Amino acid sequence: MTDVVHEAISPDALESRLRAIGAARYHDRHPFHRLLHGGRLNFAHVQAWAPNRYVYQAAIPRKDAALIARLDDRALRREWVHRIHDHDGTGEDDGGIERWLKLTDGLRLDRAYVISQQGALPATKFAVEAYVRFVHEHSPLEAIASSLTELFAPAIHAARIAGMLAHYDFVSEDLVAYFRRRLDQAPRDAGVALAYVRANARTAEAQNAVLRALTFKTEVLWAQLDALHFAYVDPGLVPPGAFDPARQASAYSTSAV
Amino acid sequence: MTDVVHEAISPDALESRLRAIGAARYHDRHPFHRLLHGGRLNFAHVQAWAPNRYVYQAAIPRKDAALIARLDDRALRREWVHRIHDHDGTGEDDGGIERWLKLTDGLRLDRAYVISQQGALPATKFAVEAYVRFVHEHSPLEAIASSLTELFAPAIHAARIAGMLAHYDFVSEDLVAYFRRRLDQAPRDAGVALAYVRANARTAEAQNAVLRALTFKTEVLWAQLDALHFAYVDPGLVPPGAFDPARQASAYSTSAV
Repeated sequence: MTDVVHEAISPDALESRLRAIGAARYHDRHPFHRLLHGGRLNFAHVQAWAPNRYVYQAAIPRKDAALIARLDDRALRREWVHRIHDHDGTGEDDGGIERWLKLTDGLRLDRAYVISQQGALPATKFAVEAYVRFVHEHSPLEAIASSLTELFAPAIHAARIAGMLAHYDFVSEDLVAYFRRRLDQAPRDAGVALAYVRANARTAEAQNAVLRALTFKTEVLWAQLDALHFAYVDPGLVPPGAFDPARQASAYSTSAV
Repeated sequence: MTDVVHEAISPDALESRLRAIGAARYHDRHPFHRLLHGGRLNFAHVQAWAPNRYVYQAAIPRKDAALIARLDDRALRREWVHRIHDHDGTGEDDGGIERWLKLTDGLRLDRAYVISQQGALPATKFAVEAYVRFVHEHSPLEAIASSLTELFAPAIHAARIAGMLAHYDFVSEDLVAYFRRRLDQAPRDAGVALAYVRANARTAEAQNAVLRALTFKTEVLWAQLDALHFAYVDPGLVPPGAFDPARQASAYSTSAV
């Protein structure tokens, strides 16, 4: 049910439609997140989630660089480049990817194994690379619009921090540092991207492209949880080569806390 | 006479071959630069040079972002991203592109005209886009090797600063700020890139790719000067639509100083 605009609508009306896509499609609605935040996953499930999500985290700077590579507007490049710093770190700040690795450390996953992405689900990798390719191949306006899932991120991060700390004794404040930092970063980034989209998507064609871009991005996120849910929850069919909680491979530890 | 290696050579031998490419092919040898630095161009010639070179400057952050978009190595991304800052600026620093626009301001060229690239030679734009595409399409090792013309840049910048200040009364210290800054930036950048190439080009195949990449880059720079020389010096055939010193278009001023 992708929204389609037949005549150009106002920036406010466009923003409402974008927010409606989030309400209907953002992955906070996925059953896997409800299980995760509600404390109904076990240690091995959470172990499986974190390195898959790492694949996404690790790709974000490449995605943002792919956008910058297409921007002729120096002011916008100057603005966007801080996202690369947020994830890769700069100077004293180790950045968000390092904070994510603190989480996988805390889940007793071997760091080299996580970084290698060897145990990640193929569907995760396909979805993430589809996102990176989208930014390479679509217009800068669409690429920027695809980042607007950040409008919906603070609520899921707040729920995740509270839920995981409350329900899992193996989750400590150190492990959720990534999400705490995103509580500040995501709204700032989303504000910049939303202002750009409001200002630049003025024709019906551009507005439809923007709505499709955000819809696509919600699919990228949703598909990752489908894959996790399928492999590790229901029916629990782990694909060959993927992280398997039932096997105590030497590369990782799944011993319950 | 592209160098070809038949068996893998040592890092030192590779560096020697790279430096030999610079000695044979770097654009400091081009007659146009000798005219420019020797004070044998007139105001209109220098006017024509600056906005063409702006096309190159303006593309560099997109080129560097295209490389970052292909790097899986976070530490290398962290290192490379500072090049985007060097050109686009960050915080209080307005960056190298702005410093280049100070030069075109000083040459009494309209800033909007320069930024529009309307008056730039098509051959300039083709060469610059070939460089950006090269980085998109070749391996990160080749993309990094293509930046190694920076090994040879300090000498040309020093010669340019001295020559232009000595020979042209319309060139002041303000106008050469871009080159002064690059005297520090280029050696640092070239050192990082050279260390990467030495460490990572270990097979004959990789070494030949690296030698070809640097050769290609010298061609990108040389072709830009060929186009300037052809259009503005000898035979002086300005292509339709390009900046024409003989015409006093309202968009720019060529009145002699």
